[in-house]
Amino acid sequence: MASAPSPPAGQPFVDIHTVLSDCNDGLANLRDGQQPIRAGAAGGGSSGEEKKPMPLLARQISLESGIAVLDTGKEIKRGSSRKAKADNRVLSRNGKSLGGLSAVGGDAAHRKGDFNIFRTKSTLGSRQNSLLPSRRENGPDLHRADGAPGSAGMEDRVNESVPAGRYFAALRGPELDQVRDYEDILLPKDEVWPFLLRFPIGCFGMCLGLGSQAILWGALATSPAMAFLHVTPDINFALWLIALAVFVAVAVTYTLKCIFYFEAVRREYFHPVRVNFFFAPWIACMFLAIGTPPRIAPKLLHPATWCTFIAPVFVLEIKIYGQWLSGGKRRLSKVANPSSHLSVVGNFVGAILAARVGWEEAGKFLWAVGLAHYLCVFVTLYQRLPTSEALPKELHPVYSMFIATPSAASIAWKAVYGEFDAVSRTFYFIALFLYCSLVVRINFFRGFRFSIAWWAYTFPMTTASVASIRYAEEVPCAFSKGLALSLSLMSSTMVSLLFLCTLLHAFVWRSLFPNDLAIAITKDRSGGTRSHAKEKRHAK
Amino acid sequence: MASAPSPPAGQPFVDIHTVLSDCNDGLANLRDGQQPIRAGAAGGGSSGEEKKPMPLLARQISLESGIAVLDTGKEIKRGSSRKAKADNRVLSRNGKSLGGLSAVGGDAAHRKGDFNIFRTKSTLGSRQNSLLPSRRENGPDLHRADGAPGSAGMEDRVNESVPAGRYFAALRGPELDQVRDYEDILLPKDEVWPFLLRFPIGCFGMCLGLGSQAILWGALATSPAMAFLHVTPDINFALWLIALAVFVAVAVTYTLKCIFYFEAVRREYFHPVRVNFFFAPWIACMFLAIGTPPRIAPKLLHPATWCTFIAPVFVLEIKIYGQWLSGGKRRLSKVANPSSHLSVVGNFVGAILAARVGWEEAGKFLWAVGLAHYLCVFVTLYQRLPTSEALPKELHPVYSMFIATPSAASIAWKAVYGEFDAVSRTFYFIALFLYCSLVVRINFFRGFRFSIAWWAYTFPMTTASVASIRYAEEVPCAFSKGLALSLSLMSSTMVSLLFLCTLLHAFVWRSLFPNDLAIAITKDRSGGTRSHAKEKRHAK
Amino acid sequence: MASAPSPPAGQPFVDIHTVLSDCNDGLANLRDGQQPIRAGAAGGGSSGEEKKPMPLLARQISLESGIAVLDTGKEIKRGSSRKAKADNRVLSRNGKSLGGLSAVGGDAAHRKGDFNIFRTKSTLGSRQNSLLPSRRENGPDLHRADGAPGSAGMEDRVNESVPAGRYFAALRGPELDQVRDYEDILLPKDEVWPFLLRFPIGCFGMCLGLGSQAILWGALATSPAMAFLHVTPDINFALWLIALAVFVAVAVTYTLKCIFYFEAVRREYFHPVRVNFFFAPWIACMFLAIGTPPRIAPKLLHPATWCTFIAPVFVLEIKIYGQWLSGGKRRLSKVANPSSHLSVVGNFVGAILAARVGWEEAGKFLWAVGLAHYLCVFVTLYQRLPTSEALPKELHPVYSMFIATPSAASIAWKAVYGEFDAVSRTFYFIALFLYCSLVVRINFFRGFRFSIAWWAYTFPMTTASVASIRYAEEVPCAFSKGLALSLSLMSSTMVSLLFLCTLLHAFVWRSLFPNDLAIAITKDRSGGTRSHAKEKRHAK
Repeated sequence: MASAPSPPAGQPFVDIHTVLSDCNDGLANLRDGQQPIRAGAAGGGSSGEEKKPMPLLARQISLESGIAVLDTGKEIKRGSSRKAKADNRVLSRNGKSLGGLSAVGGDAAHRKGDFNIFRTKSTLGSRQNSLLPSRRENGPDLHRADGAPGSAGMEDRVNESVPAGRYFAALRGPELDQVRDYEDILLPKDEVWPFLLRFPIGCFGMCLGLGSQAILWGALATSPAMAFLHVTPDINFALWLIALAVFVAVAVTYTLKCIFYFEAVRREYFHPVRVNFFFAPWIACMFLAIGTPPRIAPKLLHPATWCTFIAPVFVLEIKIYGQWLSGGKRRLSKVANPSSHLSVVGNFVGAILAARVGWEEAGKFLWAVGLAHYLCVFVTLYQRLPTSEALPKELHPVYSMFIATPSAASIAWKAVYGEFDAVSRTFYFIALFLYCSLVVRINFFRGFRFSIAWWAYTFPMTTASVASIRYAEEVPCAFSKGLALSLSLMSSTMVSLLFLCTLLHAFVWRSLFPNDLAIAITKDRSGGTRSHAKEKRHAK
Repeated sequence: MASAPSPPAGQPFVDIHTVLSDCNDGLANLRDGQQPIRAGAAGGGSSGEEKKPMPLLARQISLESGIAVLDTGKEIKRGSSRKAKADNRVLSRNGKSLGGLSAVGGDAAHRKGDFNIFRTKSTLGSRQNSLLPSRRENGPDLHRADGAPGSAGMEDRVNESVPAGRYFAALRGPELDQVRDYEDILLPKDEVWPFLLRFPIGCFGMCLGLGSQAILWGALATSPAMAFLHVTPDINFALWLIALAVFVAVAVTYTLKCIFYFEAVRREYFHPVRVNFFFAPWIACMFLAIGTPPRIAPKLLHPATWCTFIAPVFVLEIKIYGQWLSGGKRRLSKVANPSSHLSVVGNFVGAILAARVGWEEAGKFLWAVGLAHYLCVFVTLYQRLPTSEALPKELHPVYSMFIATPSAASIAWKAVYGEFDAVSRTFYFIALFLYCSLVVRINFFRGFRFSIAWWAYTFPMTTASVASIRYAEEVPCAFSKGLALSLSLMSSTMVSLLFLCTLLHAFVWRSLFPNDLAIAITKDRSGGTRSHAKEKRHAK
Repeated sequence: MASAPSPPAGQPFVDIHTVLSDCNDGLANLRDGQQPIRAGAAGGGSSGEEKKPMPLLARQISLESGIAVLDTGKEIKRGSSRKAKADNRVLSRNGKSLGGLSAVGGDAAHRKGDFNIFRTKSTLGSRQNSLLPSRRENGPDLHRADGAPGSAGMEDRVNESVPAGRYFAALRGPELDQVRDYEDILLPKDEVWPFLLRFPIGCFGMCLGLGSQAILWGALATSPAMAFLHVTPDINFALWLIALAVFVAVAVTYTLKCIFYFEAVRREYFHPVRVNFFFAPWIACMFLAIGTPPRIAPKLLHPATWCTFIAPVFVLEIKIYGQWLSGGKRRLSKVANPSSHLSVVGNFVGAILAARVGWEEAGKFLWAVGLAHYLCVFVTLYQRLPTSEALPKELHPVYSMFIATPSAASIAWKAVYGEFDAVSRTFYFIALFLYCSLVVRINFFRGFRFSIAWWAYTFPMTTASVASIRYAEEVPCAFSKGLALSLSLMSSTMVSLLFLCTLLHAFVWRSLFPNDLAIAITKDRSGGTRSHAKEKRHAK
């Protein structure tokens, strides 16, 4: 216990070797069937060439902030007292984390690399076919009966869907991505997990950010209101290609995760914040379709495009709005958080795309659905009900989501009804006010650690810029053009900064994909070891 | 106690003998003045020719489901063990129910038929004139002073209005129509109550269902978009006549209830779900007026029609919306439930009728009032606040109410503003989405026992069909016409099924009107016998 | 303790001697620097010529209601038993109020006049420059360190901003202006405070009431729909001059309060109800600008007018809406109360003024901002969430605020979009329905004691009247004209009554400005004397 293993320092942006070895590993595993105990140090994601001996301290802090790593590297001597403290913390946490299991006997030894619990079950037939994981939510638990101890018991704990309340109880932060101090998790915190397990659904946020940038530069190049800028359409084309490439890369990687670690995907799906990001892939697709450069796209896209991309959005909506309305514990008054806007904005983006394929009536349908649920989400978030547990106390980038929906609604109204009238204006101005309201609080945004999900928080700014361009087309005056220009610059600057930040995290600090602790929380508070929980209570 | 009385098995649909004997009984009672103790077995509603000896078990189960009765009849032998269990249950419940009263001595004997407590008070002058029962809600209790024991004390318990919280505490189910197990009620559960006491306000739901069908078939017959169907206007005429007949029958019966059992009506009025059904009679009237067959109606109805039908709706709205806003405990965040839509939809139906009588401005007024309160109800229901106690955990037919209001709003906008524009479309599409959202969850609807209130849940489907026809007139394409047609068929099928179901319950299983337990809950938890409550607590 | 001091009986409407002596006093204080202990009886506001010996009873009751004073004066003999009771109450309250302090020794003696704790700090540089008092809300407490006992410690307690929860805990009533019985306050209850301390921000309500009347009579004079009345524009002119004069007087007085008692102003700013009245001065300005009589105003006002008046509103909005959305404890679900409408209505009034200066687009922006937040406030208030602590149980004049926002929204829409179309109508009709809904409950309005804030509750009626005139212009029929006329009469009658009432309170009963207890609550429950609090708990 005291001799903590030396973990690698982090992982590069997309380490193709890792991915492939991971996949091979996974396939081998599938061939061998159920293989509960894996060799400790050879965790799927820790391919040899990446390993560098590094003190535990650095690893711990790299989880906190990429910048801290560099500082520590430079000031390693000064940090000795802090190191001792950190070591203590780690030890005590490990003690707590594994205490209950060490009682079982050597379990702790093989637990280190036991990532199989999140693997797709070998019973492929029954599991892979269930395209709708949620069906199991309230269903009978088929795996309860087999009383196999050890890893099988742990698998049990994984397979049962985690109730919404647990996520709120065990996690914290506006993105619910940090584990509370007293919480135990199923996977080791002091080890680098397989790459695919560390690849969250939030990565599609990058596609949102880049795809919307492509649209923005397309609008800047073609809008008569911005003609004075003489923006070349090539920027649009280049950005679109980059967005497409990133989308393909992220989509392929996440598909691999779906194939090999379906249990982890299920846990992301049940996560109250993450579930909204399941809209992101499809919205990103729609962004790509809307932003298609004129040189490679016909005037009107084929309606099949729209049907393909809107179908999953619609299914997800039926599912998630239904949960709000009638589904057990996931009440809107409880799960509402700024990222819920993602589940609404899809409707408006879909409406814009519908207008691009010539199906205005379908767009109007989506617009109406979006409006109804936007109302609910907007009012609920503004009220900040005491039951809304995920709402951040302080301002956070996730609040930028507030801008996305009214901006998109404004653009969509113009797209489907043909004019930037009072409704469009109203939504645009609401977005503008919220933008102001957030910008003046900009200093609150500091002090948060970077996460890949931040990418998703840039697309609202971009959407607002596009809406501003549409407004400048309608009311062509110096003020509106200046506004559109400055918003566009702000959004592009933000995306550039984030791009730089991502590159630094990926290739310099190698901390882009920290262990995704949020998916590894235990199903109940005691983590399955009730006697241990009792002890803790006694200790208090 | 052990020798439970043998109750009759149920009551037919509308047993005119029963009603009349009930009325005579009531009149006799009024003549004799206050007559607290009535002969036990001769409960007003149990007319001789209906009595059939039947085991207690069957009676109990017939309360649960009409279908169960048949099964029990066939498998009476197999059910012996179940029967013993049920008997035990009944006995123990009776024990609990009457325990406190038997201590008073012989009280239990005359309690069996003591339905006088719900009778209209003999002080006719002061009571019958109070057309607004609610005025008494916070008023001083005039009957407290007379310290007559026994039945008079019980009357006391009845006369005081039951606070909203009690209904939530004592009842359960999405319609708050089932008494919780541990609750005592004022009337015997094992006896058939007088017919009028078992005739709930929800029966007006039938008029809603049939009246809206008449409108639908009128629209199918006259709408240019549906001309390809060649529907004859005779169906409309026939349906309208049926709807009219049912309305007259229900209205007369309920008027008799108002006259003879005013206390029961008051209790229905204070019931948080039922109160919304007090809008049903007037909405049904408006449906009949709107759906008047062209052959007997002029082009424009007389404005007096509108004034007559909207006046009570308006008074009720002032009352109920005022309660939400400023009236003590009946906060919207507490009493909101899907049937609250009924209190909103009246505005939109009123707006449609206003357009039919040529008073568009009045229609616009109602539309605005409807919109404001629809917003509140919609957002509140979608949030599912933890304080909203009546919300069903599972989906239930009552959820279909969600469709009614936006559909009606859509039709009403077209009626008063003259075009099916963006607003109409938005509401129509919201209704359509909610329809989809409920239809895909159709399997959740099973497993509930039939109640007469289900009729009210068909009119939303019909309203959505009519809105679809209006939409098909605006956007005449194959898809919209097909949609209108299929929605119309679905709604007509549902009404036919429900009609069949009602006939079966009424004439075959004779279980259409079970004892209306919801109105007989005690005013406070202990049911007036505090020492008994203490004992129970000790027993625990 | 037993010999209670004989306080003066009240203060006149605007006692210019008092104000001036107060100011001189304040300036002297500023010259002398920190001067914690002031001579007891010579409280700044109690100038000699006003003092009249009067029994304690009268003083106490004059706080309750001006009318009660007269009654007591006439029936002083009959009231002897009541007097004894009241005396007891006063004594026991004083005992509680000062008990903890008397333990410190002679503190109670100089506490009587210790109003310095609310004075602007002598460190003028650091304090006066902080134009945004809220910045300190979460800032570090600079004054904590100096451990000076007595008055300095009390100053500490004043300077720290009081959390929102404390206001709800310590105060009651729909305006949160009455101290709960068990609460201790920082200033003596049995003494008349300096005039400026008793001059609340709510006085700007008078300007709202009079300014809107000026607009109403301007509309009556110029509207073609009301031409049949032949109203002379002179009434508008006279009212406008009165409104202007009152505004100047109130503004000057409140500015003096800002200068000399900035701490008291800060406490008003943190008060959950009062903070909304900080919008009142700017809305009053805008009313004056909108209602400028044609004879002295050009057709279009200069845009600078709009910019000047809307800037503070916008800054306040950014601040307050931001608090709802992301600022710590001041969640909308907690602080929402009918006066929150004041923070929304500014947008619509600003939109009307924007149209008057020719900046329609800016007006549309404000309208959109107003709409979004109106939605939130409206739904939240209608739901009456259990967390909304300030909502009155009974109806109260503050509920008239509900009418203000939709009326203003209706007028503003017509102003910025140029026609009284469906949107205008919808808002107008919503206002009309709410008006009806309140009028039928008029008898609930009785029994509340007058406060200067009532003036703010007249402007909604006036706004509704103006909206009715606009509607009558659009739909010129007998009914609409009659409605406009009767609403105008009602509003003018109400303003006249209030004017009379104010004059009576000011000059006859001299009770227009009672001690403003709400600003003097202690920061925490125990009021700094924890041992005393414990004793109280023991006593219970």
